[in-house]
Amino acid sequence: MSAEPPMRRALELARGAWGRTHPNPMVGAVITEGGVIVAEGFHAAAGQPHAEVMALRALGRPPKPDAVLHVTLEPCCTHGRTPPCVDAILRAGLRTVVIGATDPNPAHAGKGVQLLRAAGVAVVEGVLGEECAELNFLFNHWITVGRPLLALKVAATLDGKLVPAPGEPRDITGPEARADVHRWRRLFPAIAVTADTLLADNPRLTARDAEGEHAPVRFVLDRRFRSAGRAGLRLFTDAFRGRTIVVGLAGGARAADLAWYEAEGVTVWALPGEEADFLDAWAERCATEGLTGVLIEAGPRFASALLREGSADYLFAYVAPRLGGDPESPTWFEGVDCPLRAGKTTLFGQDALFRGYLG
Amino acid sequence: MSAEPPMRRALELARGAWGRTHPNPMVGAVITEGGVIVAEGFHAAAGQPHAEVMALRALGRPPKPDAVLHVTLEPCCTHGRTPPCVDAILRAGLRTVVIGATDPNPAHAGKGVQLLRAAGVAVVEGVLGEECAELNFLFNHWITVGRPLLALKVAATLDGKLVPAPGEPRDITGPEARADVHRWRRLFPAIAVTADTLLADNPRLTARDAEGEHAPVRFVLDRRFRSAGRAGLRLFTDAFRGRTIVVGLAGGARAADLAWYEAEGVTVWALPGEEADFLDAWAERCATEGLTGVLIEAGPRFASALLREGSADYLFAYVAPRLGGDPESPTWFEGVDCPLRAGKTTLFGQDALFRGYLG
Repeated sequence: MSAEPPMRRALELARGAWGRTHPNPMVGAVITEGGVIVAEGFHAAAGQPHAEVMALRALGRPPKPDAVLHVTLEPCCTHGRTPPCVDAILRAGLRTVVIGATDPNPAHAGKGVQLLRAAGVAVVEGVLGEECAELNFLFNHWITVGRPLLALKVAATLDGKLVPAPGEPRDITGPEARADVHRWRRLFPAIAVTADTLLADNPRLTARDAEGEHAPVRFVLDRRFRSAGRAGLRLFTDAFRGRTIVVGLAGGARAADLAWYEAEGVTVWALPGEEADFLDAWAERCATEGLTGVLIEAGPRFASALLREGSADYLFAYVAPRLGGDPESPTWFEGVDCPLRAGKTTLFGQDALFRGYLG
Repeated sequence: MSAEPPMRRALELARGAWGRTHPNPMVGAVITEGGVIVAEGFHAAAGQPHAEVMALRALGRPPKPDAVLHVTLEPCCTHGRTPPCVDAILRAGLRTVVIGATDPNPAHAGKGVQLLRAAGVAVVEGVLGEECAELNFLFNHWITVGRPLLALKVAATLDGKLVPAPGEPRDITGPEARADVHRWRRLFPAIAVTADTLLADNPRLTARDAEGEHAPVRFVLDRRFRSAGRAGLRLFTDAFRGRTIVVGLAGGARAADLAWYEAEGVTVWALPGEEADFLDAWAERCATEGLTGVLIEAGPRFASALLREGSADYLFAYVAPRLGGDPESPTWFEGVDCPLRAGKTTLFGQDALFRGYLG
C-alpha cells in the first residue's frame, strides 16, 4: 500500500496550523490500521503536544500490531517544552513509522530515526519528503542558519515598476494575488516595512482572510526614528499596535522619541552598532526572539538595495500582465545580478508569483 | 440541453487545423440529433470545403427534423472560393443553428444569421463566443484592420533581460515554454527577425513538434540588405529557404545583392519609401499577400523600439524565474510605457507567458 495518501493527509493536517506554531514547525500525523486511517493529529501551537502525541490521543487505545504512524517530520528525540515523541511512539507500541522530512536541526537530524530503529521499529523515510520539508521553509532556515528567513516581497508590472502611473489603479496585482499575500502574512511570524513606506502608505500590514484579521509582528525599519510623533498611523494606533516594533539605531535615538513610542504602546528596538550593521543587528535580534522569518514589503529602492547587498534570502515577486508604471519610480531590480534558486511559479488570476531563494 | 459540449467539440475540431487554414479562419462544426453528436467537420485548408459542409457530408443523409448544427463561426453568406454555407444549411433542411463567434468581417457580420432567420431557421448566437472568437485572433485583426497582427515575442528573465549572462545557459526559458513558442510558430503564417538576429544567432525559425518541422514564411528585416552574400545561414540554405523573404528598402538595394538572393532561392521584397515608413510598408505588403499575422522574435533593442513606436499589436512575453542577464544587454522594455489589454497569463513549467494586445 502506498504511504503517500496518509502522508498527504498528514500534510493537510499540518497546514491546518498555518502560521500558528511559531517558532515550532508545522507537523501532521496520521495512524493507519490495515491501510485505513484510524486517528489524526497535528501540532496546534508551541507548548501544545506534538502531532504524534495528538494522533495517539485521538486513537484513545493501544494501536493494533499492524498500525502505521505517518508523520510529516522526523519525531523529536529531546525534551523541549514537551517530552520527546520517540518515547511516546515506543511506549504506545507502534512497530512501523513513516516519515516525511528529516529533522532539519543539524544537532538532531536522523537521531529520532536511529532511536526508533534501535528499538526495533521499522522506519520508512522521505515519503513526500520534499513537500514536507518545504512546508517549514521558515523554521528550516532559522534552525540551520540561526537567522530568520528574510523574504522580500514585491508586486510589479511586467517591466518591473512597483508604483502605478499617476491616475492608474493603485493595486498592481489582482484580487487573487493580493489574497495570496495575505496567506503569506498569515504564515510569517513577522512583517517589515521601511519608515518611508509607513509614512507614504500608512499600511495595516495585517493578514485579512475568511478567519478575520491577524497581525504578525509588524516591524518599522526606521534607523533614525523618523516616525516618532507622527499622528494617525495605523501601525501606532490600531488594535494590534502592541505587535508593532520600531527598529532603529541606539545611537540615533532621542529620549523624547522613545518616550513617545512607549506612550503609544509601541515597542522599540534600539539596536547597537553602525548604519552598515543595521540589518544584521536586526536579523540577529529577530533570531534570538524566535522569529523564524520576516516578510519585507519593500518599495523599489529598498528592494534593489536588499538584492544588491545580498541581504534578502528569499523572493516573492508577483508580476501583473501590465506594462509601464510611474515613470519617476525605478524598477525593483536596478543593478541587481543575483541568482534565484529553486524557483517556483504560481498563477493567481492573470498574475504570476515567482518565488525562490536568492544568492 | 446545453449547447456548450457540442460547441466545445466543434472548437476542438477547429483547432485540429491549427495554422493550416490561412488566410481563412479555423472553423469547426458538429451536428447533433436528440442531443447526440452524429456528424463532425472542420475547415482543413483554404480552398477546401467549410466546416458546415464537411459536417453535412460526414452525416451522409438528410438531417432529422430535430438536428442542430453547432458551428464556431457564423456561416458565410457570400461566394468565396466555395459557395456560401448559408445555402448549404438551408438546402440540407437544418432547422436550428447554434453559432459561436459572429463573422468579424464588418461587411458580413450578422448577415449569415439574418439570412438563416429570414428562412425560418432558429439561430442561437454567442455560445462559447469569446473562445470561438479568440481562436482566430490573427484572422480577426487582419480582416478588420486590414493589416497583419504584428506580435512581438520575447523570452526574458524576471528583470527583463533577453540575453543570459556570459557562461549561463543560453536558453532563458525551460522546455515547456520553448515548446509553446513552437506552437505559436505553427499558428502564425509568418515569423520575422532582424538582420542583427539573423547574423548573430543564425536561427532556424521553424516550428518543430511531434508532427515534424514546419516553416512559416520567414522574414528577415534587413533595410540595407546587409545579409546578402553571407554564407552558412540556415534561412538561406535549408530545405525551407523558398519560404525565406528578405525585406529591405528599394532605395538601398544593389543589383548584385538582389541577384545573390535570387541565386540562393530566397525571395526579396524591396519596398518603396523611406526608413521611417519601412515597417508600415512591410505590414501593408503582408496584408495584401494574405498574411494575417507575423510573430516577431526580437532582441532587446528592436523589442523596445517596436513598443515605443507603437508598431506591435500584440505581446508574447515569456518570463523565467531568473534574475540577472548579460549586464551589457538592455531590458526589452527600455523607455516603454504602453498598456497591455486583455492580458492572459499561462504557466509553462516554472515560466509564465504574459500575452495581450498592446496600446
